[in-house]
Amino acid sequence: MGNERLVVIGGDAAGMSAASQARRRRGEDDLEIVVIERGRFTSYSACGIPYLVSGDVDGPDALIARTPDEHRKRGIDLRLGVEAEGLDLDRRTVEIRDLTTGRADRIGFDQLVLATGAVPIRPPLPGIDAPGVHGVQTLEDARELIEWLAPAHRRAVVVGGGYIGIEMAEAMVRKGLAVTVVDRSAQPMSTLDPDMGALVHEAMEGMDIDVVTETEVVGIEVTDGRASAVLTADGRFPADIVVLGLGVRPATELARAAGLPLGASGGLTTDLRMRVGVGGGAEGIWAGGDCVEVLDLVSGRRRHIALGTHANKHGRVIGTNIGGDYATFPGVVGTAVSKVCDLEIGRTGLREKDAAAAGFEFVTATIESTGRAGYYPGARSMRVKMIAERITGRLLGVQIVGRDGAAKRIDTAAVALTHRMTVEEITSLDLGYAPPFSPVWDPILVAARKAAQKVAEDR
Amino acid sequence: MGNERLVVIGGDAAGMSAASQARRRRGEDDLEIVVIERGRFTSYSACGIPYLVSGDVDGPDALIARTPDEHRKRGIDLRLGVEAEGLDLDRRTVEIRDLTTGRADRIGFDQLVLATGAVPIRPPLPGIDAPGVHGVQTLEDARELIEWLAPAHRRAVVVGGGYIGIEMAEAMVRKGLAVTVVDRSAQPMSTLDPDMGALVHEAMEGMDIDVVTETEVVGIEVTDGRASAVLTADGRFPADIVVLGLGVRPATELARAAGLPLGASGGLTTDLRMRVGVGGGAEGIWAGGDCVEVLDLVSGRRRHIALGTHANKHGRVIGTNIGGDYATFPGVVGTAVSKVCDLEIGRTGLREKDAAAAGFEFVTATIESTGRAGYYPGARSMRVKMIAERITGRLLGVQIVGRDGAAKRIDTAAVALTHRMTVEEITSLDLGYAPPFSPVWDPILVAARKAAQKVAEDR
Repeated sequence: MGNERLVVIGGDAAGMSAASQARRRRGEDDLEIVVIERGRFTSYSACGIPYLVSGDVDGPDALIARTPDEHRKRGIDLRLGVEAEGLDLDRRTVEIRDLTTGRADRIGFDQLVLATGAVPIRPPLPGIDAPGVHGVQTLEDARELIEWLAPAHRRAVVVGGGYIGIEMAEAMVRKGLAVTVVDRSAQPMSTLDPDMGALVHEAMEGMDIDVVTETEVVGIEVTDGRASAVLTADGRFPADIVVLGLGVRPATELARAAGLPLGASGGLTTDLRMRVGVGGGAEGIWAGGDCVEVLDLVSGRRRHIALGTHANKHGRVIGTNIGGDYATFPGVVGTAVSKVCDLEIGRTGLREKDAAAAGFEFVTATIESTGRAGYYPGARSMRVKMIAERITGRLLGVQIVGRDGAAKRIDTAAVALTHRMTVEEITSLDLGYAPPFSPVWDPILVAARKAAQKVAEDR
Repeated sequence: MGNERLVVIGGDAAGMSAASQARRRRGEDDLEIVVIERGRFTSYSACGIPYLVSGDVDGPDALIARTPDEHRKRGIDLRLGVEAEGLDLDRRTVEIRDLTTGRADRIGFDQLVLATGAVPIRPPLPGIDAPGVHGVQTLEDARELIEWLAPAHRRAVVVGGGYIGIEMAEAMVRKGLAVTVVDRSAQPMSTLDPDMGALVHEAMEGMDIDVVTETEVVGIEVTDGRASAVLTADGRFPADIVVLGLGVRPATELARAAGLPLGASGGLTTDLRMRVGVGGGAEGIWAGGDCVEVLDLVSGRRRHIALGTHANKHGRVIGTNIGGDYATFPGVVGTAVSKVCDLEIGRTGLREKDAAAAGFEFVTATIESTGRAGYYPGARSMRVKMIAERITGRLLGVQIVGRDGAAKRIDTAAVALTHRMTVEEITSLDLGYAPPFSPVWDPILVAARKAAQKVAEDR
């Protein structure tokens, strides 16, 4: 037993990274580490589930970065199938229940990491719990969905046209199903501005995915005890399988009940070292991953963004700090990449409506370029939209839709955003150029040139 | 005739960009623009020549971004086949000669742009001027080389294993020739550290390209009036065709003779607006492209880097300034990308030896990762090397060798270098993550984590 006990609630990316990082820095006789995980798996890639369903990834084991046994071998007391039911900050204990035996217990902590993740949004619609309606959050969900998919199934309806929606649409197309995506927004991918979302819409239609926008789902039709259609205000969409891709919300009931501070999104708020409630008497409480809010470095606001890469970084920061060293998570700029078949999507920073909501006045510039020199074989078109603050020219956001290397070009913009670069400054960035990889002016530079011109004309 | 006359010497990327940009901002009655170009082409992509030779690009026309007539239609008095032979800074005139008629003339200027480019390094070896020995700088070179390539030719020797050398090696392999690359360095791609160059060496051998290193070429064997072998201290390499890929040096004889200031590399030195000799009585003289030195933002030194993307940026800055507006070229971080068959190479910043020469003490970290999530189909290995200053952890340089999206990942590092980020700061960059595009920790972040750890251990 160690001098101190660390209890981690949640054994996925943030929790296990925190535990591993702390273990690397403090031996077992110094720090006892107990991880409470409700499910049967640890450290798996939920983002990989669409590719498991499509058959691109062989089996669920491939998505598990580190098995429970591997964690245990490294001196982590990992308890699977155990749920945290209560949190007593005065007594510094967690009430836990073994989901198999039903036995309740109580465990004390010196340090506590809340890594309770997020839960899929599941609106209380008639029929939503019928067999054939599938979420895509856990490996269990994936297993159930794959089992449900019978050769006889021909029609899939995906509810929600965000990241998980379009990725699942691709997966279902690849399984040979006729796919309809129903979304309440004007365009799919509402993390893009509608003009850029329209490009995704058009491309999806070209892939024979039926995209129905501005349409509210009102219920699931159930026939013979199984989902048979998605019902909307605009009509009925027959379905052998319904996939829910409506996003997630932070799972913070435990924290809320214990009186820990939550932000407007319902996510936990932390300081830069990922500590919760500092100054409020709650020392030694940390939180990270999909259950926390992060600072948006562009708008200055706190947001909830559920993304594995952030969760891993949070875990590393928490574990480093518990390990006695110093690390911070400064915030995000809102970078995300995705694809549907061969169409790549990248975005970072603010959309027009975010910029307006944050109080910015701005100009926009959209350009068409290619990912390789125009004369190089395989050069495909790429659209880049840039949003820049009026007068100052400060970059506020970038969106890219295209093929062949479009998505990861967003990283350049992400670093530029982090450093509050102006679009004029971006025009002189020293980016890699060779005909197979870029036109002589990289698309990011072309967009920056046009945006800089717009800023100048607007002065 | 305009109020002022701009004379541009050199009608390639820098010169024509400057002319176009100035024309866009000032009408013909305000600014007369005369461009003097020795060759027959304007605004062509020399970087595309290897792909023209390989047959990936259809014909030389594809490499011409804008034809002479297109420039002329935009009000630029473009004179092809005319050479600038002298420069009188007191009288503000250029002595020119028509290479077809031999007629000499003199043209006055108010503004002058020196965009004389670079010339291939061609050591005075016995046999170097024999038929069958080819440079790869101009479209004329490319045409001659392609004409020389007969179906009967079986063996090519490429002298020099830098960018142009490896790209030409690939082109010759694709034309079905047996290719040997001879380089005096310990490894090909000496813009990389030798440990990373060794990966390129190994991959090239795997492509059946014979790479002979640490070998000095002493001459070209000529048989029946044609090159028949490359002669080295280590032996004779038979060749039906010899390609010279020994790099270039700035073409600044004209400027030197006129007394303009040159740097240690022989390139012209300019201020941030790309003006030459400011304060020395030479007002209205500008220079850009392959004939100038650029400021290396990492080492603080001036260097000669011949690269089309810099030349285009210089031209834009010069043209904007001559146009009456304000623009600067702040410098470079030394980014370059290349490929040989499917092997991608990216580099930015300082190599170990550059860092040492600049006076830095440093640590290095090399990691192996993949361009996609490890479980995603097609994930291929990628090696990333990071060099960071001791104590401060400031990023000094990054080298990447891999496949499938390896090269352009260097852009992230380039922006980080521009902003003098530390490797610890890089670990929290918000880079795009989704399984088809990146592991949950992007290879750049993995390398930064390892480098940050090395920096910490070294304190």
